[in-house]
Amino acid sequence: MSIGNSYPLFNILMSRIVESVGEGVTDMKEGDHVIPIFNGECGYCICCRHQKTNICNNFGVNPMKRVMNSDGKTRFSIITKEGDKKPIYHFLNTSTFSEYTVLESACVVKIDSEAPLKKMTLLSCGASTGVGAAWNTADVQPGSTVAIFGLGAIGLAVAEGAKARGASTIIGVDMNPNKFIKGQAMGVTDFIDTRDPGKPLHERIREITKGGVDYSFECVGNSDVLREAFLSTHEGWGCTVILGIHATPKMLPLHPMELFHGRGIIGSVFGGFKGKSQLPRFAKECMQGVVDLDEFITHELPFEKINDAFKLLVEGQSLRCVLHL
Amino acid sequence: MSIGNSYPLFNILMSRIVESVGEGVTDMKEGDHVIPIFNGECGYCICCRHQKTNICNNFGVNPMKRVMNSDGKTRFSIITKEGDKKPIYHFLNTSTFSEYTVLESACVVKIDSEAPLKKMTLLSCGASTGVGAAWNTADVQPGSTVAIFGLGAIGLAVAEGAKARGASTIIGVDMNPNKFIKGQAMGVTDFIDTRDPGKPLHERIREITKGGVDYSFECVGNSDVLREAFLSTHEGWGCTVILGIHATPKMLPLHPMELFHGRGIIGSVFGGFKGKSQLPRFAKECMQGVVDLDEFITHELPFEKINDAFKLLVEGQSLRCVLHL
Repeated sequence: MSIGNSYPLFNILMSRIVESVGEGVTDMKEGDHVIPIFNGECGYCICCRHQKTNICNNFGVNPMKRVMNSDGKTRFSIITKEGDKKPIYHFLNTSTFSEYTVLESACVVKIDSEAPLKKMTLLSCGASTGVGAAWNTADVQPGSTVAIFGLGAIGLAVAEGAKARGASTIIGVDMNPNKFIKGQAMGVTDFIDTRDPGKPLHERIREITKGGVDYSFECVGNSDVLREAFLSTHEGWGCTVILGIHATPKMLPLHPMELFHGRGIIGSVFGGFKGKSQLPRFAKECMQGVVDLDEFITHELPFEKINDAFKLLVEGQSLRCVLHL
Repeated sequence: MSIGNSYPLFNILMSRIVESVGEGVTDMKEGDHVIPIFNGECGYCICCRHQKTNICNNFGVNPMKRVMNSDGKTRFSIITKEGDKKPIYHFLNTSTFSEYTVLESACVVKIDSEAPLKKMTLLSCGASTGVGAAWNTADVQPGSTVAIFGLGAIGLAVAEGAKARGASTIIGVDMNPNKFIKGQAMGVTDFIDTRDPGKPLHERIREITKGGVDYSFECVGNSDVLREAFLSTHEGWGCTVILGIHATPKMLPLHPMELFHGRGIIGSVFGGFKGKSQLPRFAKECMQGVVDLDEFITHELPFEKINDAFKLLVEGQSLRCVLHL
């Protein structure tokens, strides 16, 4: 990865120990164990004060934001070969591909110092996003049926969340059958290989569940997959949660009248968790085994081997590779 | 209106008195006052037994259905000039443009014989659909803000429902300023004339409400209006309810990522009311004045003047014209 004038410090997942705090920060101190959150919680904006959302008007998700809120400046710089000092920009409030980073306190969550830091890294995004989508966004009920499209770390975290809520059937949909082997430990009960020829995915799911699942989760970011996820739910009450990042200009592949059949569709950011106020409890629940994080960390590498880590991810061999700085 | 081989008996709104009941019908008898419902409730299908929906698998909305469920036949016919008996088909379970009609008991709701039959006609669709969309689908909360796109009978019924729930601001959006005069009695507090040049509708609404309404209702069936309704709601928790019938193939004018800002969109059929089990209570609430139905009936005409009634509606002069058979 090159670092130049216009490059920010990527990555959003990490767990760290506080080195020092700035003026006015009262809720944490040097030595505290913390996790950063890309979707912060200022606590005082109209959204933070509203029960129904975890959006924050000041520290929400904004990939274009490159500086600190407090003074509009960056905290990182590099000295070029020519001796010039050039700024390095922030990324999604966290900028964690760095030995040291600087964050606004609204984007830092203090956790129990007993919690294993390595596992807590997963709460910065993956596990919180997936489990939270099942718990907070969809509110999966005991005995219900679930379909998960895309069994990466996020999709498998949805399975963990649905399992913890007592879902009776959790159908995993992926093009890599190895994901089913992995997924079984995390709650996946049935697997559909998208490469198998035959009926459309939603028809297969509606057959397995006699009419459709109660909840479907789209964790891919693909328009066709999103439509299959929508059609896989039961008419009347089926709920589709979008977790995938849709990077194309393609609009929602649904007709307005299709919503009249009683199916809903909803987006989920950071699993609906209000980070500062709700993540400490979720961290405790993970430590108590309500959700098992063990299976998510499949590899560990020194930071220097970061390109190998990307390769493992792209090839579908890893879920999460912890990079040690 | 011509009635020929392929024409069904139109219309869905009416109130009637039972003339006779068929074998096996136990919940009503000759002389009962009833209203028909185009979205029936069989009471035993998987949807009827589910709390979250008012869809019925057996008697739901199906414009293509032309016969009775029980035997797949029609109950109407006409003798042609040549003396031939030709069938007339049913329409949306009700077929009420007729002196006598025949309905399945799942599509007939018995109401209090004290209730004024003329007003109860409104509960067959308009009032139930609009008020129910505010109460059941959106669950409008006291003190909240509402925008209604299209102030026909349905939109104004939404206003009645929102007013009954204690909404603080109810913005009516229409191209006919007379609708505001009418709407004020029904709860509309602010009016936006769509013909006024200037900022897009959603920007005007976001200014009035400092960030967007809590709920918006699309009662037009137009794709551009639907997008304005969606953008008019507050980020984080805004909810758009689709009531308009979208008769074109145009898909939902939203990008999947726009749902990540915490806005939701949902369809509402018959205001979310389970007809047989919930409408009798709603009829009582209307009689008690919880919702005022008086303003909806703007005209009354004999059935022979049906074309005048259509004209009044198309020209935006009437809300509901009662036709006396």
